[in-house]
Amino acid sequence: METDYHRSGGKGVLSVVGTGPGSLDYLIPAARQALDDADIIIGYKTYLALIKDIVGSKKIMSSAMMQEVDRVKKGLKLAEEGANVALVSGGDPGIYAMAGLVFEVAKELDSAVEIKVIAGIAALNSCAEKLGAPLMHDFATISLSDLLTPWELIEKRIEAAAAADFVLVIYNPKSRKRDWQLNKLLEIVSRYRQKSTPVGMVKAATRENEEVLLSTLEFFNADLVDMQTTVIIGNSNSYEWNKKMITPRGYRNKYQLD
Amino acid sequence: METDYHRSGGKGVLSVVGTGPGSLDYLIPAARQALDDADIIIGYKTYLALIKDIVGSKKIMSSAMMQEVDRVKKGLKLAEEGANVALVSGGDPGIYAMAGLVFEVAKELDSAVEIKVIAGIAALNSCAEKLGAPLMHDFATISLSDLLTPWELIEKRIEAAAAADFVLVIYNPKSRKRDWQLNKLLEIVSRYRQKSTPVGMVKAATRENEEVLLSTLEFFNADLVDMQTTVIIGNSNSYEWNKKMITPRGYRNKYQLD
Repeated sequence: METDYHRSGGKGVLSVVGTGPGSLDYLIPAARQALDDADIIIGYKTYLALIKDIVGSKKIMSSAMMQEVDRVKKGLKLAEEGANVALVSGGDPGIYAMAGLVFEVAKELDSAVEIKVIAGIAALNSCAEKLGAPLMHDFATISLSDLLTPWELIEKRIEAAAAADFVLVIYNPKSRKRDWQLNKLLEIVSRYRQKSTPVGMVKAATRENEEVLLSTLEFFNADLVDMQTTVIIGNSNSYEWNKKMITPRGYRNKYQLD
Repeated sequence: METDYHRSGGKGVLSVVGTGPGSLDYLIPAARQALDDADIIIGYKTYLALIKDIVGSKKIMSSAMMQEVDRVKKGLKLAEEGANVALVSGGDPGIYAMAGLVFEVAKELDSAVEIKVIAGIAALNSCAEKLGAPLMHDFATISLSDLLTPWELIEKRIEAAAAADFVLVIYNPKSRKRDWQLNKLLEIVSRYRQKSTPVGMVKAATRENEEVLLSTLEFFNADLVDMQTTVIIGNSNSYEWNKKMITPRGYRNKYQLD
């Protein structure tokens, strides 16, 4: 028998909730509340595993049952029927994650469901934390996934960001099928930055298998990077101190430190 | 009489803690824990006000007593003496905030104090949430403050990011003394993007006086922007739907929505 989600108030809500990087210490109370309020939680199994200790006896629909677009459609349908649905995304659903797809599908279906996005700690926030203070100045965030974006545009962006001295935050540096893009990026950036420019990588930030590695453009080994890794490359002023990557807050020596 | 912070274990810790955007619903548990564990909390008064309900009877040192660099020095000194110090920053201390200055000053003083950065929900995360899903693709984050950075470099970055079709996230769009930079930015971006490109602004995200406004490159009114505002400008594919700003996840129509 199907659960009847129809309520006195009418329609349900679809909340797009980020788990943050992994540890529950990084899950904001607003996200936790949305999970508590949900009648049903839908998500990719990796992310559901991160929150398994707090979902209690909620009804769960995982990726074993359906793919990304189908998960969104199912979520919209259940909300339409009156359920409070939490659609779970990794990191911040608003940064390269599920929020966009939800709106895209809702628009396509001309859905009237109320959609709530709840921010989260994204990979860029947690990786910056683990590396020290790399994002104190302007940065460009680039995904190396060429599944939905032509490589030519990605390369144009790398070139533009490198030339204008942005700190670079690299999402999706590699996958099983994509293994050359990161080396290509390092090659492009090396035309604009010194060999000593710090390059940091963080794998599985805040999780048990977390790895943090600080290197330089010259010595960075792209082989160590995998799908769970985020890479940050400093600007011309970034430096390493005490195993931390630090980008100064400006280019002029206007503030006295002593 | 001075408090004696010397402990059996030796030295204290300086934690750089972000308040997030303002509402305690966006304060991660790790940050809350650091505040709970602190013997003393140091910060700019605006940020201390946001967390006043959870600091209890802690010793507080606010900006009325000292300026930025002095706050950091005081924090390092107290930690050196054995105190657990929480230095409070707005948003994410790792994004244009206090983490960098702490390391810079610690390096300058050759300090051996243990420094912990704790990530937070930055303005870019909370503003993206309020606008819908603007950051689903590559973005460049640029501060318009030319206090420590030459305007020429800022303009070069705007130009580079606009030409390479990055979504733009604008920090410090304006201050009492800086009023023309945002209009200059809009003028530059307008050379590369259509008039209909969505432009969103969020003021005081998650706070009582929150304001969210969605407009276009053609009609955006920079006069409405103040120091508490973050501005997001879409890429060539971003659009408005249902009062939300949405950037599609890619440029190729590889995913079927229906």
